[in-house]
Amino acid sequence: MIIKTVKNILDANDRIARDNRSLFDANGVFVINLMSSPGAGKTTLVERTIEALRARYRIAVIEGDIQDTCDAERIARLDIPVTQINTGGACHIDGNMVREALPNFDLSGIDLLITENVGNLVCPAEFNVGENCKVMILSTPEGADKPMKYPLMFHESSALIINKMDLLDYVDFDLDKARRDALAINPKLAIFTVSCKTGEGLAPWIQWLTGQVEAFRKSRP
Amino acid sequence: MIIKTVKNILDANDRIARDNRSLFDANGVFVINLMSSPGAGKTTLVERTIEALRARYRIAVIEGDIQDTCDAERIARLDIPVTQINTGGACHIDGNMVREALPNFDLSGIDLLITENVGNLVCPAEFNVGENCKVMILSTPEGADKPMKYPLMFHESSALIINKMDLLDYVDFDLDKARRDALAINPKLAIFTVSCKTGEGLAPWIQWLTGQVEAFRKSRP
Repeated sequence: MIIKTVKNILDANDRIARDNRSLFDANGVFVINLMSSPGAGKTTLVERTIEALRARYRIAVIEGDIQDTCDAERIARLDIPVTQINTGGACHIDGNMVREALPNFDLSGIDLLITENVGNLVCPAEFNVGENCKVMILSTPEGADKPMKYPLMFHESSALIINKMDLLDYVDFDLDKARRDALAINPKLAIFTVSCKTGEGLAPWIQWLTGQVEAFRKSRP
Repeated sequence: MIIKTVKNILDANDRIARDNRSLFDANGVFVINLMSSPGAGKTTLVERTIEALRARYRIAVIEGDIQDTCDAERIARLDIPVTQINTGGACHIDGNMVREALPNFDLSGIDLLITENVGNLVCPAEFNVGENCKVMILSTPEGADKPMKYPLMFHESSALIINKMDLLDYVDFDLDKARRDALAINPKLAIFTVSCKTGEGLAPWIQWLTGQVEAFRKSRP
């Protein structure tokens, strides 16, 4: 009974996500759904990505949080269009929440929209919002056992950013194991080792993302 | 409609949790529901707590994970009774899952039962399992903004363990802000700053826990 309810919710969400996708396609908006545990570095990655790509693309951000607006305020300081979704207790953003946020933007003036999900390594991976791709962060203090423990997010993501490499000497993180187990779940996963704090390793991520956006733009009629 | 379904699920869960609680009371079992983000150090805290209290109390553990059994294997190596709950995708354990696990234990031979929840700073706080108290971990690399962003867990917990103090010099963690914001949400919260890795700061936590268990034992007829 409960399982059926959950399945109906997911089906309804997928329909809304497809509508969002049509709207994004019509306006040429490439969308990333960014996910991770709490405190893995999502907002800092968004800030770094904006710095690197704002000259090339018109960027906008949707911030998903249970409550509060502190991440959205960080993005607004960069003079980037940002809308806050407060989920009011829900542990993820979904297609409908993103649909409700879209009237706050002029989609025809956006090339790249980043939706930053609620910090949670489980449920966000189940809910499409109309994105072109899911991107996840794993930070080194979380440990290398996370792919085996939370496989769905690794399975659904196109890119895995291993963040907080500046802490590698101080934590027990087996980088080889993390890579190996993540690729066993998802052999196509693009993996980047970075420190959003120092900026180390971010160039390949920016290059990959640019490649994705350009491929999307070329695929449009 | 969806909200009603969720409310019904929570009500049904509370009924089962109360049944679990009656069973624990009848057998004199003190139960902790341990929660945190993925990788904050739950299993290591359980290991440290077992080391410190196994001479005094008969301890058992329920490990909640989406899939896999690696945490349960760590506990089994300590020769402590342990049962694995695999939630099969669910982002928390609930009263029914714990009820299903209980036949694996001889409750009359347990003084302290620790249920380690799925790594998630959101939903576990909504689902009682019949525990005497909820205990949460926040690790320093996650950042001091977590109380304001994930308030329910801080509100529901009796104790907050700030872990990975050994990393304090290498991360941007405002300890005063974390304490202040957590206490603003829950003035009764007992806060402990520890490193489960080095063992630093664990004695006050063990002392607090012992006090809770003893108070429970004295309250029994």
